[in-house]
Amino acid sequence: MLSPAVCANLEAALERAVTRFDDGSPTSAQIRYHFGFGEPSRRGKRLRSRLVLEVCAEEGGVDEDALDAACAIEIVHEFSLIHDDIEDGDRLRRGRETLWSRYGLAHGINAGDALCAVAYLSLLDGSMPRPAERTVAMTRVLQEAHLAMCAGQGRDIAFETEARVTMDDYLAMVGGKTAALFAAACELGALSAGTSERRAAAYGELGRAYGIAFQIEDDLLGTWGDSATTGKPSGADLAKRKWAFPVVWALEGPPSPARDRVAAAYACGTELDAASVSATIDALDGLGAREAALRAVRCALADADAIADREAIDRSGRVRAFFGGAVRRVA
Amino acid sequence: MLSPAVCANLEAALERAVTRFDDGSPTSAQIRYHFGFGEPSRRGKRLRSRLVLEVCAEEGGVDEDALDAACAIEIVHEFSLIHDDIEDGDRLRRGRETLWSRYGLAHGINAGDALCAVAYLSLLDGSMPRPAERTVAMTRVLQEAHLAMCAGQGRDIAFETEARVTMDDYLAMVGGKTAALFAAACELGALSAGTSERRAAAYGELGRAYGIAFQIEDDLLGTWGDSATTGKPSGADLAKRKWAFPVVWALEGPPSPARDRVAAAYACGTELDAASVSATIDALDGLGAREAALRAVRCALADADAIADREAIDRSGRVRAFFGGAVRRVA
Repeated sequence: MLSPAVCANLEAALERAVTRFDDGSPTSAQIRYHFGFGEPSRRGKRLRSRLVLEVCAEEGGVDEDALDAACAIEIVHEFSLIHDDIEDGDRLRRGRETLWSRYGLAHGINAGDALCAVAYLSLLDGSMPRPAERTVAMTRVLQEAHLAMCAGQGRDIAFETEARVTMDDYLAMVGGKTAALFAAACELGALSAGTSERRAAAYGELGRAYGIAFQIEDDLLGTWGDSATTGKPSGADLAKRKWAFPVVWALEGPPSPARDRVAAAYACGTELDAASVSATIDALDGLGAREAALRAVRCALADADAIADREAIDRSGRVRAFFGGAVRRVA
Repeated sequence: MLSPAVCANLEAALERAVTRFDDGSPTSAQIRYHFGFGEPSRRGKRLRSRLVLEVCAEEGGVDEDALDAACAIEIVHEFSLIHDDIEDGDRLRRGRETLWSRYGLAHGINAGDALCAVAYLSLLDGSMPRPAERTVAMTRVLQEAHLAMCAGQGRDIAFETEARVTMDDYLAMVGGKTAALFAAACELGALSAGTSERRAAAYGELGRAYGIAFQIEDDLLGTWGDSATTGKPSGADLAKRKWAFPVVWALEGPPSPARDRVAAAYACGTELDAASVSATIDALDGLGAREAALRAVRCALADADAIADREAIDRSGRVRAFFGGAVRRVA
């Protein structure tokens, strides 16, 4: 576990990485607004950057070795959130207006693009000296994850107008949209510590398994989650007709009246009303979709264990303990 | 001048750089659509990538040394166009629907983000071996230009709601939005050839001067351009109430009836109707704004000459001949 001092250090590094490019332009001010530095309630969970530091520590590095990479991946994540909010039409994040809602669509797109460059400059200008070959390898890992994230997000957007999404489609989407960045976080943490590229890639596989667990758990919360915990109403994913794991799983099963009800609700192609959400949740419960999703989360976490054993990585279990803490909401 | 064979080589390299990441996702298909490979009429002018090759050749490099950087900067430019089209609400580019108009806003933003990663991967995976220190330096040059481009674009978006834009504001905007990428093109061309970082930075200054000339010329065409040449109606920038050079210059001048007419047209805060555009062009003509813009273009090109002389770069004049060919439409 990272100490509070390390977390404070990360937060300070993140603020420096972002604000050092402040040039008095409207874009700089918008980026500051998005981060809400100095307002803890506006802060993200920093899962990806903390994961970089956890893996670096596990591999014998010190935090200073990994702070630039931790900032870089967190900033990539934040740039993607700025754009996701536009893509999803979301006007609120962390209790206040999203960047695009406050400053308009054009600034929202542009500020996200600017922040994307800030992310990579954090890595390229790294505060700690490391061989240039390593910097190139780390930048490539992050760019490849960024590309995979967008390919996954593109699949997810395309799902909105699909009449049917298979489990293979779903897993291809999640593998990019969510798992790619968690995989990169682990790989970057290992590379920061000076680990071999082969061993770092194994950490990437560990992170990928975790990313899949994380997304399926998120889908569980979007279906059965308690609004007090998640900040969104129970059934929120269904209301938006999102192809979340429980629905995809249910439609892969054999025909039954309950399956037909789920299929009919999703066949309409529009958002679901409250009665339809409620009926769909009942049908999913009857089909055992909740248990199936819980099993899938546990299965992905077991995959992480198997990878760690096979590759002799995460020997202390520190990285997996971090996963367990983060995926603790339902599983 | 680049030979037709070199231009064909560049085009093939660009297609490879973009399509090698094709993973069958909707995003890959959208990116292919944007480029329209194999349809010469859909092709951009490739000014930035050709500039990379021209500078590399001038500094004694061969094209193969610079193709990866040429592709990278052209792809950064294309990703910015995909997003600009959304920011400006433009539904047509190169004679057909823009990406966002065809596939929707969400895909438009996301495909641009994906293409951004593709651009940097072109440089990081460069087809030719070069020292990793050089790859890091080149990636940093491109990321910094990308950030400056967005800061400039943010200023330009903010201008839309400004009651007044000064020449300083205008030059800060152009320095980022347009000149940063031309500067980076020249710097990358020199770095590709193995030139020292100091000498490469001088090429960057040359490119910056050219970028300013290019943008002011573009503003001239947006005011007085012939629609047969520019593909947009004369006065197009005024109709959209864009803070183009002639307007900014006119409003910096001493009070006069003609100046007041320009100020009044821009004070309304909305797009200008045809009569108002026509009256504003007449007023700008009367104030000598056209000649002022032409002088500013020539002045920026003279700056390029002075930089080349002072730094003893572009000795053969090849790079400036390329500039002259590109900025030949009015100046």
